[in-house]
Amino acid sequence: MPINAVLDRIDADLDAALDRLFELLRIPSISTDPAYSESCQQAADWLVSDLAGLGVSAEARPTQGHPMVLGTVGEGSPHLLFYGHYDVQPADPLNLWDRDPFDPAIEETPNGKVLRGRGSSDDKGQLMTFVEACRAWKAVNGSWPCRITFLFEGEEESGSPSLVPFLEANKDELSQPDLALICDTALFNRDTPAITTMLRGLLGEEVTVTGPTRDLHSGYYGGAAINPIRVLSRIISSLHDDTGRITVPGFYDGVPEIPDEMRAQWDALGFDDKSFLGEVGLSQPAGEAGRSVLEQVWSRPTCEVNGIIGGYTGDGFKTVLPSKASAKISFRLVGTQDPHAIRESFRSMVTTMVPPDCKIDFKGHGNSHASVMSTTNPAFETARQALSDEWTNPAAFIGSGGSIPIAGHFKEILGMDSMLIGFGLDDDQIHSPNEKYDLRSFHKGTRSWARVLDALTGSRAAS
Amino acid sequence: MPINAVLDRIDADLDAALDRLFELLRIPSISTDPAYSESCQQAADWLVSDLAGLGVSAEARPTQGHPMVLGTVGEGSPHLLFYGHYDVQPADPLNLWDRDPFDPAIEETPNGKVLRGRGSSDDKGQLMTFVEACRAWKAVNGSWPCRITFLFEGEEESGSPSLVPFLEANKDELSQPDLALICDTALFNRDTPAITTMLRGLLGEEVTVTGPTRDLHSGYYGGAAINPIRVLSRIISSLHDDTGRITVPGFYDGVPEIPDEMRAQWDALGFDDKSFLGEVGLSQPAGEAGRSVLEQVWSRPTCEVNGIIGGYTGDGFKTVLPSKASAKISFRLVGTQDPHAIRESFRSMVTTMVPPDCKIDFKGHGNSHASVMSTTNPAFETARQALSDEWTNPAAFIGSGGSIPIAGHFKEILGMDSMLIGFGLDDDQIHSPNEKYDLRSFHKGTRSWARVLDALTGSRAAS
Repeated sequence: MPINAVLDRIDADLDAALDRLFELLRIPSISTDPAYSESCQQAADWLVSDLAGLGVSAEARPTQGHPMVLGTVGEGSPHLLFYGHYDVQPADPLNLWDRDPFDPAIEETPNGKVLRGRGSSDDKGQLMTFVEACRAWKAVNGSWPCRITFLFEGEEESGSPSLVPFLEANKDELSQPDLALICDTALFNRDTPAITTMLRGLLGEEVTVTGPTRDLHSGYYGGAAINPIRVLSRIISSLHDDTGRITVPGFYDGVPEIPDEMRAQWDALGFDDKSFLGEVGLSQPAGEAGRSVLEQVWSRPTCEVNGIIGGYTGDGFKTVLPSKASAKISFRLVGTQDPHAIRESFRSMVTTMVPPDCKIDFKGHGNSHASVMSTTNPAFETARQALSDEWTNPAAFIGSGGSIPIAGHFKEILGMDSMLIGFGLDDDQIHSPNEKYDLRSFHKGTRSWARVLDALTGSRAAS
Repeated sequence: MPINAVLDRIDADLDAALDRLFELLRIPSISTDPAYSESCQQAADWLVSDLAGLGVSAEARPTQGHPMVLGTVGEGSPHLLFYGHYDVQPADPLNLWDRDPFDPAIEETPNGKVLRGRGSSDDKGQLMTFVEACRAWKAVNGSWPCRITFLFEGEEESGSPSLVPFLEANKDELSQPDLALICDTALFNRDTPAITTMLRGLLGEEVTVTGPTRDLHSGYYGGAAINPIRVLSRIISSLHDDTGRITVPGFYDGVPEIPDEMRAQWDALGFDDKSFLGEVGLSQPAGEAGRSVLEQVWSRPTCEVNGIIGGYTGDGFKTVLPSKASAKISFRLVGTQDPHAIRESFRSMVTTMVPPDCKIDFKGHGNSHASVMSTTNPAFETARQALSDEWTNPAAFIGSGGSIPIAGHFKEILGMDSMLIGFGLDDDQIHSPNEKYDLRSFHKGTRSWARVLDALTGSRAAS
C-alpha cells in the first residue's frame, strides 16, 4: 500500500520537519500589533518559499492588512482547499513565559515531548502538519494526490479584516475547489481524534467610560466626582444575572437547543468535567446554571471580559480618581445569533447605564456568526474513518467553543463545505504564556493528513 | 516695620527663589517607585545643602526608606516645627503631559503665570515658600524670628512607612517645638487664604482575584471557567448602594455630623459647586445623596477605585480569559472612623463575595485616622489675621478632602498641635498630568509665611 510508504517517509523526515517548523515559529508574526507588521510579511514569505520547494508557485498576495499566501498545484479529484493561519497571538504577559516565546524548543514533560513556543499549536504547528503530509506524499509518489489549493491567512488572531474582501475579490479562483480542509481545532482528547462540526461565532467590543476631563486627586475630588471605574464595574457586573444568563436584550434569539441525537453522541464521549476544569485549577462550571460543561463551551453563547484597565496600575499606590476606564468584552455566539443585532442591543443597554456626567465610547472588533457544518457530505465519514485508523480511539464529530469564522465565509461566499480537523489539546495554552504543541500531535497529525488525503482520493473515497 | 523690609526682600529675590525651586523640581523624587530611590536621596541632599546656605546644619537622616531631612536653628519663642515633603507622585500617564514633568518652566495662562512640573504644587513649591520666607527674614534681620525645626519627609506620597518609627525614635528631640506648621494644603480659592482644620484619613487596599491558574482561551473555556474580572467588577459595584452610601459593615461608625456652627461658616464661604465640578467637566455631585459638595469632599467618608487591571489591555483584541484581575481601592475617613476596623470589615465582606473557585489576596497600603485640629490654640487666630493681611479676602478655617496623617502623628506621638497653611489651588492638577503651582501662590505664599512668622513671634502673637 502506497500510504504506508508515505507514513514511513513522514516518520523518517520528522527531525527535518521540526527544523522547518521552528524556523517559522521564530518569526514573531503577531498580527494585532502594528509593531510586528514586518514579521507577518516575513512569515508569509517563508511559506511561499517553503511551498516553492514543493513545486507550488504560491504568492504572498497583498491585502489592506497582512498578506494572504495562495497557491494551487496538482491534478485530479477532489479539488481540496487547505486553510491555516500564520499569524499568532501577542505573547504578553512575557514574564509568565518560562522561555522566549519566539525561541521554540522541544521540552520533556510528564505527557511526553512538546514543542514550546508562541504559535506552536495555534496555528503554525497545525498548518505545517498538512504541508509536511504533502511533502512526504510528493517525495514518495512524485506527484500530488489531487488538485490542492493552499490558503494561509495572516490576520486570524486580529479579526480577519481582509479575509472577506479577499474571498470576494478572488471568488472565481477560490470557488473551484470541492471542499475546504481547515486545521485550527483540537483532538477530542489525547487518544480521540475529532472533526469539529460546530463552532461559536465571536463579537468583540471595546468600551471606554470617561468621567472627569482629567485624572483627579481622590482626596480633593473623591466623593463628589464620578469614578469611571465604578461605572464600568457596574456595567460589567450587570451583563450576567445570578443564574449566569446574559442580560443583553434579545441575546438569546437564535440560540437553539442541541438535537437529542447530538446530545446522546456527546454524552457517549464520556467528557470529564472535573479534569477539564481541574487542569486549570477550577472545580465548578461557572456558566449558565443547569447546563453541562460541554454545553457551556460548545453550544451555549457567552459573554467574557478579556481585559480591563483604568487609573494607576503600577507598583505601590497612587490616590488618583481616573478620567477613564476601559474594557474589552467579547461574546461567543451559537446557532443563528446575529452579531450585528447583538452589538446594537449591547450598546443601547450599556448606554442607558451611563450616568449623565460620563461619556461612553464603543469600538467594534470584528464579528462572526456561529458555524454549523453539514455532515451529510460523504467526505466527513470518509475522513472520520481515516482518522480512526491513525489514533487509539475512533474519531468523533464534536463542537468547539472557539470561533473560526472562515468556515462560514467559505460556505456563504464560495458555496463550499468545510471540514475542520486539528490535533491541538486543551492544555496547549494557546493564547496564554508557555503555548505548546505535543510532538505527538505534530507527528500523528502529519500522518493523519496523509491518511485523509489517501482516503479522500483513493478507494475509500470512491466506495 | 521690619516685616515690610522682609516682604520687599521676598519681592526682590523672587527670580532667584524660582531658580532654586526649579533645581529641586528637576530631581524626579518619586517615592513609590524603587527605580527613583537615588533621586529621593538627591532631593534630600539638595535640601540639606540649601539649608546649610542659611546656616542651618541639617542632616538627611537615614530611614528604612527614603531619608528625613532634619535640622534646627535660631533662638526664641515659640519653637516652631515646619513640615513639608520632598517626594512626588509618579508622572504617568506621561503622554498626557504637555512637557517633560521634570523639566519645569514658567508658563503664561489665562489665570496668570504658573510654574509647570511634577511637585510644583505638591509639595516642593509649597515647602520652598517657607524656606524662602526664612531666607528673606535672615537676610534682612541677620537672625531668625524664633527657634525653628525643619522636618522634610521623602515618603509622603507612598504612605509614609518610615514616619511613625522616625517620630518614635526621635521623640525627645522632636517634641521640643510648641507648634507644627505644615504646608501641604490649598487656599480656599484664588483670593481667600485658609487654615485647614479638618483632614480626612486614608486607608488603601490592593485586591487581587485569581481564578484559573493560567490565562485561558476565552473560546475554549469561556462559559465554563470563572472570569476574575467579572468577580472583581461585582465586588467593586457592591461597595456603594444606590444612594452612594458605602456598604462595608460598620463603615459609618464614628462618622459625625458637622456642628451647626461649622456648617454656617461653610455656607458663608459661598462655595460654587457648579464651577468646582465644571472645571473638570462634570455637572452632578456623585457622592452620597442629600449631601452638599463641600460635605462630600470635606466631612463625608468615601470609597474610590484608584486603579484596575486584568487581562489583555494592549492595542487590538485578545480573546483571553485571564487568570487574575486586581484593583487598588482606597477609603477616605472622617471623625473617629477606625482604619483598622474598616480594613478588617472590608476584607471579610469582600471575601464572602468570592466564588469557591477564586482566591482573593489583599495588600494593605497604609492607613491613617482623620485629623481634626483644635483651633482653641490662640496661634490659629493670630495666623488667620496675618494671612488676611496678605490676601484679598479674610482667611477661613476650612476642611480638606485630602489626607495628611502627619498632623495626627504630631498630636499622638509628640503631643503637639499642627496648623496647616498652604497656597495650592483646586486646579493645580496635583497627582495628575500637567501639575502646576501659580506663581502668585509661590510669591504670596512666601510673603504669607513671613507675615505668619512675624505675627507668631511679634506683637500680635503677644496681644
